[in-house]
This record gives sequence, structure tokens and C-alpha cells, in this order.
Amino acid sequence: MSRRYAVVGTGALGGFYGGCLAKAGVEVHFLMRSDAQVARERGLRVDSKSHGVFKVHPARVYERAEVMPVCDVVLVCLKTTANEALRELLPSVMGPETTVVMMQNGLGVEGDAAAVVGGDRVLGGLCFVCCNKVGPAEVVHLDYGDVRLGRYRADGSAGGVDEVMEGVAADFGAAGIEVRLIEDLVLARWQKLVWNVPYNGLSVVLGVTTDVIMGDPGLRRMAEALMMEVAAAARGAAGRAIDAGFIREMLERTERMRPYRPSMLVDREQGRALEAGSIFGAPLAAARGAGVETPRLELLAAQVAVLAERVEAVRG
Amino acid sequence: MSRRYAVVGTGALGGFYGGCLAKAGVEVHFLMRSDAQVARERGLRVDSKSHGVFKVHPARVYERAEVMPVCDVVLVCLKTTANEALRELLPSVMGPETTVVMMQNGLGVEGDAAAVVGGDRVLGGLCFVCCNKVGPAEVVHLDYGDVRLGRYRADGSAGGVDEVMEGVAADFGAAGIEVRLIEDLVLARWQKLVWNVPYNGLSVVLGVTTDVIMGDPGLRRMAEALMMEVAAAARGAAGRAIDAGFIREMLERTERMRPYRPSMLVDREQGRALEAGSIFGAPLAAARGAGVETPRLELLAAQVAVLAERVEAVRG
Repeated sequence: MSRRYAVVGTGALGGFYGGCLAKAGVEVHFLMRSDAQVARERGLRVDSKSHGVFKVHPARVYERAEVMPVCDVVLVCLKTTANEALRELLPSVMGPETTVVMMQNGLGVEGDAAAVVGGDRVLGGLCFVCCNKVGPAEVVHLDYGDVRLGRYRADGSAGGVDEVMEGVAADFGAAGIEVRLIEDLVLARWQKLVWNVPYNGLSVVLGVTTDVIMGDPGLRRMAEALMMEVAAAARGAAGRAIDAGFIREMLERTERMRPYRPSMLVDREQGRALEAGSIFGAPLAAARGAGVETPRLELLAAQVAVLAERVEAVRG
Repeated sequence: MSRRYAVVGTGALGGFYGGCLAKAGVEVHFLMRSDAQVARERGLRVDSKSHGVFKVHPARVYERAEVMPVCDVVLVCLKTTANEALRELLPSVMGPETTVVMMQNGLGVEGDAAAVVGGDRVLGGLCFVCCNKVGPAEVVHLDYGDVRLGRYRADGSAGGVDEVMEGVAADFGAAGIEVRLIEDLVLARWQKLVWNVPYNGLSVVLGVTTDVIMGDPGLRRMAEALMMEVAAAARGAAGRAIDAGFIREMLERTERMRPYRPSMLVDREQGRALEAGSIFGAPLAAARGAGVETPRLELLAAQVAVLAERVEAVRG
């Protein structure tokens, strides 16, 4: 029998991945807030570069986690700024064999789930995808889509690959989403920060897209210097090596990309909460704890934190 | 016989200081661009916290430097971004005994004048004043006003105090402007950067006033760290010592200030050129030349440079 999925937090990401799974015939239960009524009446609409335009209708939609059934796999697609709510959202969908996949950005997010459900049933899902919510229960998928999946270990060690991960990868694969299983989630998290820190930070502070950063010699140098600071933090705080070749590849790949709005820039423009804690606060705290100097990361983190507070103040 | 003054660049600063001198009976010749016709017809209007509301009318106003008379003292009140024009603006007002006073912000501005008129007739004027141009030939002076005056030396040594400086100070003093004569212009320039770098930089990048910087623990820490980097650059690049007590005093004084918009923030809001080169580029280049690490200054300078370019692009 196939696995039953819950999507906790059906925004752009949850709508896209959950929608693709449902389209492929997987039983998916969607937790939504304001969009639930619309989704119930008209279905969840996905306009995807890779999967075409489709509707999940009728969709299994819930406004409150308490009424959701126990699921085999829970895809947490909340903003990291909402992770405090996991305490209320997760228990009712958890059975003895349930796996929680943290489809989020930044560092330390698996620990947020582990604190609620225990450390041995949590995976991290690193999403390389560009999608936006464009209306109630309406998602546009613009580009990319692949996921890297890794096992969380409370002690920070590499968790390797296991059958649970393979099962999730198979479901995603059947739904047309490529999942790469990774041996070392911590390394993957730090590697993703190598990109996220400079591009999210510089873009949201200055209001510029990636091509502006790469086209300005001073900013490009700072992007590289920030990457090196993140790599130094990864080594000092987590014992993970990220070498100069990886950094060079990130720079070159970003240079080849079309002008791109990193998620934090989009969030700021749309008045949504900025994930300052998981993308900046957590790696900075890790670096400090290990006595690694990261002066540019520190300055950028302080700037982003002020912008995040301003967004919060407006949101009230 | 009293000294004859030229004001080269009659914006807020030039209008205020030149206006006060003229009000006190000094012969002042004002170089203006777009405002000249209005100033000729209606006079130069100053609304000053310390000097009341007054008009210089008739005012000696010029649209082109070539038609100005030779003066004894030339107050250069241009934006530093316009210093390339000194080559055209200065020669006609220069006689054999003329002194040029660079009433500008940042590092290296005296060198811009020295390259045109020679190094032994240039003074630096550090203005601690808050004033704005509110209309054509119309200036509002909000607060402070004192000037520190120092002798430029091409070799970077302390120039001491001389009779020329005392004469300028006497003229300003008679006009109700306090001038403090300083022995070491280079030290004074770096000391002013200790304040200007963090507060201009953080405020213009984030769009915040000084009280926001001082009220946010992370930003306040960054302001202090930036001050320490500037002090390290002053020591390494210029052999000038700026101690922890000076930095502490700058922080405390800023904390006591009413919410303040640093000049660069005002410039950005009003679409005027940002003095990125003299306030950020020059100290950063000096630090690099001396092999002093200033990572936060470097990041902030790169951010400010991008904003400056954007302002330029809009100004066309």
C-alpha cells in the first residue's frame, strides 16, 4: 500500500510538491489556513513549468491539524519563522512510524521538529525550486524543483541513506520530482547556506537581483568573501569541509543564472516574514560558539535582522 | 582691510556659512548654478537656529567661476562627488595669497584641491552642522554649526596652527561661528570618519535614523565594530591613534542625540549624489594599502557604492 502524506503549511512550496504527489495518485492531506475554503470549493491549482497546469480537486484540505489523519510522511513546508507552531501542528498526524521531512531553508530546522517528535524520525529536505503563491490555493512553479533528502542525527553526524528515505524518494520520483539522497545532511545544509547567505542577504538589504550582485565587482567580491566565511564556520562549528572549488562553482552557476530574486527578497517585497533566524542567526551563532570570526556575515545578519523586525512590525 | 571670501558651491552648507559671513559684513562672492537668478532677484535667505532669519540681499552671485574676482579665502562647499570640477572652478578666484578651505566630508578631499592649486595653500574645514536647502537660494540651519580647521600637508604630517588659520577663525568668530583650530588635520579627518562610516553607511543602506541603530543591539554592536575598524585603518594607514575612549564617547554622544538623519541618508532620500568615495572608498583604499583588514567596512562600502550608482543612474 502506498504511503499517505501530510503537507503542513500549504504555501507555494507545499502546494507545488503536495500537488505533484496528489496528481500522481498519492493520498495527500493539506493543512491550510486562509485558503482552505477556496481549495475545498475550487481545488488546489498548480501552474507548473515541468508538470503543466493541473488541479487537485477534490483536495483533502484541513484548517486545523487536530482533525487530520495520521500520515506516513509529513512534509513541513512552513516558513521557519512559524516553527514554534510545530508543537501544536505535528502530534495529531504522527503515528509510530511517521517520518517528518523539514522542507525548509537554513540551519537548525530539523532540531525544531526533533524537539517535538524525537530525533530519529526527522529528515531534512533541501528544495531547489522557484515557485510562488499567486492567489488563494493557486501556485505557479517557475523553475527547477529537485530535492535533496538527508537523515537528521541529533549528534550532528552523517546519517547515511536508509529505506525510509528511499521510499520518499520513490514517491517523489513517481510524481516527476527528482530526489537525491544525501549521506550527510549537515554538510548539505551548510553548502546551501554558502549560496543563501550572500544572495539572500545582499539582495534583500539592497533590493537587487542576483545579476546585479554578480555584475558589480565590489558586491561580487563580497559574495565570495561571505561564502568563505560560511565555509569557515562550517569547518569550525560542524567539522564540514567546503572547498574553494565548491565556492567557485556557486559563483559561476549564479553568474550563468537568469536574473533571480532570492526568496528573502521576494518575502520582503510581499511583506512576508523574513527567515532571518534560520539563514543568518543560526550559522552566526554556530560560528560564534566555535570561535570562528565571520565579520561580514555578522554585519549582514544584523542588517537582515533589522529588516525582518520592520516586516514584523508592519505585519503586526 | 578685511578678507574677501568666495563660496564655491552654494548649497545648504555654503549658503549657511557664506550667509553668516555676509551678514557680519564680510565681502562674500557666491558661486551658484541653478539658483543664481533667484538669489540675484530675491537674495539668499537663511533661516538659522543660531542666527535667526535673515537675507543676504543684494548678494554677490555668479553662475560661472571665470567672472568671479580673486579672493583671499575660498570656501569649497561642493559635494565631494563634484571635486573633478575644481580644475575649472578654482583658478580664477586664486591670487598669490589665496587660501582654499575644503569644507567637505571624508578623506582625501584636500588632495583634490592641492592637485589644482598646490599643497601649501589648502586647509581642511570639518563642519559639524545640520542644515538643508529647502528651495532656490533658501537654506534652513537646524542645529550645531562649529567648524574645525586644520592645515593640509602633502606628506600627511600634522600641520600645526598658523596665522592664516587664525585669520579665518577670526572672521568666522565675528560672524558667530565657532572655529576650533586643530594641529593635526589627518587625525581629525579619521576621527570624523569614526562617526561617519557607521552612521552614514548603516542609515543609508537600511533607511534608518541614528536612534534605530543605537536601539538595536546587533546594529549597535556593528556600529562599534565599524568604528574599531576605522581606528585600525587610521593607525595602520596614517599612524594616527584613536583610542577606545574616543569610540565610547562617539557611541554615547550618538545615543544622547535626538533621532538624526545622517547626510548620506538625506542625500539618498532626495536623490542627490552619495559621497561614497570620500567617506567609504578613500578610507577603505587606505586600509588596503596598509594591509589592514577591515571586513565590515569593506562590505558596507560595497553596499553604499551600489546605492550611489543607483542614485547616479536615476540622476542620469
